[in-house]
Amino acid sequence: MKISCSKQALINGISIVSKAVSSKSTMTNLQCILIESSLSEIRLIANDIELGIETIIEGTIKEAGKIALDAKLLSDIIRKLPDSEVFIETNANSQANIRCERSNFNIPGTSGDDFSYLPEIEKNRSFVISQFSLKEVIRQTIFSISDQENTKIMTGELFEINGDTLKVVSLDGHRISIRKIPLKENYENMKVIVPGKTLIEISKIITGGVDDEVRIYTTDKHILFEFENTKVVSRLLEGEFYKIDQMLSNDYETKITINKKEFLDCIDRASLFIKESEKKPIILNINSSNIYLKIDSSLGSMNEEIEIKKEGKDITIGFNPKFLMDALRVIDDEEVNIYMVNPKSPCFIRNEDNSYIYLILPISIAN
Amino acid sequence: MKISCSKQALINGISIVSKAVSSKSTMTNLQCILIESSLSEIRLIANDIELGIETIIEGTIKEAGKIALDAKLLSDIIRKLPDSEVFIETNANSQANIRCERSNFNIPGTSGDDFSYLPEIEKNRSFVISQFSLKEVIRQTIFSISDQENTKIMTGELFEINGDTLKVVSLDGHRISIRKIPLKENYENMKVIVPGKTLIEISKIITGGVDDEVRIYTTDKHILFEFENTKVVSRLLEGEFYKIDQMLSNDYETKITINKKEFLDCIDRASLFIKESEKKPIILNINSSNIYLKIDSSLGSMNEEIEIKKEGKDITIGFNPKFLMDALRVIDDEEVNIYMVNPKSPCFIRNEDNSYIYLILPISIAN
Repeated sequence: MKISCSKQALINGISIVSKAVSSKSTMTNLQCILIESSLSEIRLIANDIELGIETIIEGTIKEAGKIALDAKLLSDIIRKLPDSEVFIETNANSQANIRCERSNFNIPGTSGDDFSYLPEIEKNRSFVISQFSLKEVIRQTIFSISDQENTKIMTGELFEINGDTLKVVSLDGHRISIRKIPLKENYENMKVIVPGKTLIEISKIITGGVDDEVRIYTTDKHILFEFENTKVVSRLLEGEFYKIDQMLSNDYETKITINKKEFLDCIDRASLFIKESEKKPIILNINSSNIYLKIDSSLGSMNEEIEIKKEGKDITIGFNPKFLMDALRVIDDEEVNIYMVNPKSPCFIRNEDNSYIYLILPISIAN
Repeated sequence: MKISCSKQALINGISIVSKAVSSKSTMTNLQCILIESSLSEIRLIANDIELGIETIIEGTIKEAGKIALDAKLLSDIIRKLPDSEVFIETNANSQANIRCERSNFNIPGTSGDDFSYLPEIEKNRSFVISQFSLKEVIRQTIFSISDQENTKIMTGELFEINGDTLKVVSLDGHRISIRKIPLKENYENMKVIVPGKTLIEISKIITGGVDDEVRIYTTDKHILFEFENTKVVSRLLEGEFYKIDQMLSNDYETKITINKKEFLDCIDRASLFIKESEKKPIILNINSSNIYLKIDSSLGSMNEEIEIKKEGKDITIGFNPKFLMDALRVIDDEEVNIYMVNPKSPCFIRNEDNSYIYLILPISIAN
């Protein structure tokens, strides 16, 4: 192989595919990036089996070929090069010679013959979403996946298409996050469970532009994200997702409307007095026109009042402050509605058209 | 005590004195900030015995008094408050009540009766330097102090006044950094050894403005930095500093002039191939118009040529790349002069008027 490309094109490509380089594995290929050049294009590929990424970079091809190089060393070298054209050439011993201006590197690689390419994905079923919406919906739901590997399905998110709506759901046993996004077209209905890790990496790679699109293909086993010159393939989580519809309800005994920022800042201050070891809730005392928030721990005490609009009964209810903050942080509305039934039933933070629903279980409080 | 001040004034003050709060100590007072108010001013004080800081903040005083509060909790609370006036009031049980808008905190403190105030410093001997110069000279020398507590004196820096010149020296057994700064006046000659930690904290606190000044007082045991509303007192290191003059020399066999950025970038690239475990030097091969730099390790190999101007003999000499980079990074000149005698004698990176001298010992290289 004998190619050249700009330092910047290489850096961009390496930074994209690096998201699928295994950091721990001792299987050499999983820590490598494959540089593969046909006579028409230069591809970078990384694949840690769960997640595979492939991107095409611009450059000049003198000789087709391929080589697998240690991802970290390659990335470090390219980043430290002058901002100029980079020449990469391989020899019969699977060594790569990298030149840029007067710098001249030789690093060992492998032939790449046993490198795992991305699986072929059948392109029967797909939908299109803007990079902006995809990045947003991941941010707005990813915090409530579980990190417990023994409830594997909870480590992923449900992506469900119903006509022209994408519904994304995550849950961890204490809370559920649901977002609905309108799509530009009607698509075939489908449901898949995408690993949280894949979504985290995808949202790092996509630019998030409103006008940039991602086409997402799904099969029974895989999901493929295609955008610009890049393909990201991930395994799906197998199994049935939780039946969340039966956990949702529009009934309530108390509805409050509250300024989101005031509420969030107040909980944030209160959380200073929460010790991880004590697992104390913060207690909201909701009466006719106020939330009275009070916390009392071995570190000290705090109280604060926030004005609200209220419908229905007064209530005293306790929450893990982190769960409230996580949900409030990703809601862009200035005011939020919170619906409660009683101190033991889940509360719902949701807007009128249910385009977001955050269900949070309360923590029982002693009288 | 009953005072009020703006959130911003409190944050600034806390952030300054926090540099003298011990992070490890279990002696409660060392982790506290003393808030002390006379009828005319509000002071914040922290003191970890080695280093003590005191700063005056603006505010309104209703009742004089004092209280010692946990530095971290206080800082966290104040930072999370709305941007508004903060009221602090103490009661007879050494509790502090902190109020801001509708937030109301109660946190336990101690009376502060056994708090260690800053030692009184005799103000006989002092000099004045701009915050800019002080911050710069610390940055330009602090990297070559030693972190070995068994060579205590090397963990500090020599500050020496000779007439209207401040000389600052640090060394770690492999290299010496020397900077000379012209002062605006003549001062009484003096020599002190200032702990590196003190200098690191001072350079975080001072703004670094060219027109902002610091007055520095020294006694046999202490150094006092006075600027704006702040006093920083540190113990000095006791003992005699190393006689460095006998290690310096203006003789050389080879002098080169090299573009600093090119040289630094090249060493930076080469250092990718240095494994901590191998402790290999980078080898500079200096001939009539070039440095030929070559490195060869188990990770791969690299070589690069840089054009230079040379006087004197050709030489092949090895260095720890980190030592070269540390010195080059803090030199602002576009071109630097490097003076060498032979592959076993120290090299000097210095300018014509010796306002900076960086001595670096080479590493012996096998033929």
